[in-house]
Amino acid sequence: MTGLPTPPATPNAAPNATPDGTRPFDDVSRLSFNQITADGSSLREVVEGCARHGIPYVSVWRHKLAETGVDAAARLLRDAGVRVSSLCRGGMFPASTQAEREARIDDNLRAIDDAAALGAEVLVLVCGAAPDRDIAAAREMVAEGIERLVTHARERGVKLGIEPLHPAFAAERSCITTLREATRLAARLDPAVVGVVADVYHIWWDPELYEEIERAGTRVVGFHVSDWLVPATNVLMSRGMMGDGVIELRRIRAAVDRIGYVGPIEVEIFNQQFWPMSVDELLPLTKQRYLAHV
Amino acid sequence: MTGLPTPPATPNAAPNATPDGTRPFDDVSRLSFNQITADGSSLREVVEGCARHGIPYVSVWRHKLAETGVDAAARLLRDAGVRVSSLCRGGMFPASTQAEREARIDDNLRAIDDAAALGAEVLVLVCGAAPDRDIAAAREMVAEGIERLVTHARERGVKLGIEPLHPAFAAERSCITTLREATRLAARLDPAVVGVVADVYHIWWDPELYEEIERAGTRVVGFHVSDWLVPATNVLMSRGMMGDGVIELRRIRAAVDRIGYVGPIEVEIFNQQFWPMSVDELLPLTKQRYLAHV
Repeated sequence: MTGLPTPPATPNAAPNATPDGTRPFDDVSRLSFNQITADGSSLREVVEGCARHGIPYVSVWRHKLAETGVDAAARLLRDAGVRVSSLCRGGMFPASTQAEREARIDDNLRAIDDAAALGAEVLVLVCGAAPDRDIAAAREMVAEGIERLVTHARERGVKLGIEPLHPAFAAERSCITTLREATRLAARLDPAVVGVVADVYHIWWDPELYEEIERAGTRVVGFHVSDWLVPATNVLMSRGMMGDGVIELRRIRAAVDRIGYVGPIEVEIFNQQFWPMSVDELLPLTKQRYLAHV
Repeated sequence: MTGLPTPPATPNAAPNATPDGTRPFDDVSRLSFNQITADGSSLREVVEGCARHGIPYVSVWRHKLAETGVDAAARLLRDAGVRVSSLCRGGMFPASTQAEREARIDDNLRAIDDAAALGAEVLVLVCGAAPDRDIAAAREMVAEGIERLVTHARERGVKLGIEPLHPAFAAERSCITTLREATRLAARLDPAVVGVVADVYHIWWDPELYEEIERAGTRVVGFHVSDWLVPATNVLMSRGMMGDGVIELRRIRAAVDRIGYVGPIEVEIFNQQFWPMSVDELLPLTKQRYLAHV
């Protein structure tokens, strides 16, 4: 592992930093690799790759899970000794009819079962967008939908992580657009079950980011990293590898450390540029950038 | 003007609605056409087109103004009897060196002179992005930059309108991303000179939109309309004509009416699809959609 860049000493150095502000090269004990980053690879390739490269966690997507089935995936993970930080994703609550909303609740209940079967700590909720122009009504459908999941999630030992998405996705993926709003939603419900997921790509621009991280406090059940590239060509698919964009990753990481979040840190990069890479190229790059920039 | 769709009666009908909730077809007394909507046309074509189609206001861009010169543009506007709702744009305060920041202040002072020469009520400020990763420092540069313009703007009788931009532009165009933040910035400065511009495209997603419009109150010096298309392909260039997207235009318009804003309502659509159209096609379409949806 020689030849990697030494992270600079900064006032924002994380709590597990060495006295000179750097951290040991091999401290990837909290690193989770979100498999969408390697969407060209199978779940098996990603899980076995993580094991081979010493990455302790993976975040699993349901469309990938469907390829192998839940039981086979659970065996694969157990055999590899890789833990699941989160399952992506539940949510998508708003719909134009009651029947469709019920079907989505049912799908979320199955997602909770899947998360439990994999030993995933968190089911990430991407809440969904309004089926029409009424974003306020959609937000109510989201609140109702999450509430309907709480008992089942508690029974299965799975946390629900409300992930606010960047406002660029408000019309198509999530009417929950700020950490403040996600925290308010979570605050109505059992803190042992419902929390929020802070993804730097979605929240970095927020003028009240640091106050909102502090307010979220113990509700934070997930922390995702990537970078915002300039120029942004396509908001969905132009997430960058840490260090390639403009997000103050270390400052945000320090704020999340300060509120006491000690769980996995997921690298989740939506960018087709990385999909042709093999996991043996992509995972070392991910580790290197994580160590240098997060 | 027969054959145009009748706007539906809605609980959000604007105060100038007729008793059945509709408004007369010819009520375009507050309509302003922002010339970027017709970027394929010259200033002369736009101004004379507005006069011909009974649109009382235009919003002028400085790169178009440069084509004719300020004096010729002022004569053109006077001769046509078209008023200038705003000049676009000042701002762009953050830069990596003090010299560059000073150059930008100078450019803003000239923009204030241009606005005064055109009789523009407002100079729209697109505040600029961080030159590096430090968005907090950029926000301080913005605050300092605006403060440096106040005296000159007061002397010239031009209002400064801080326009928060959609968070998708935070890395490239504006570190001021919410109406709340713009209002806070404005609140430090003379209310007779410094206000905010509410553009639905930039703020529609905000979970606290209506509270923030109310908070902005008399600081609102401009109101811009367009629509958010689904799917969004390119965030900069996929603004839609009113009615083609998901924004609750009439509800937002009603909120802006309630705080007492009675100034021009600008149609500002960044979308190359409209640029090949002649003003004699585009201006009637704009009027029709304004009347039906705003």
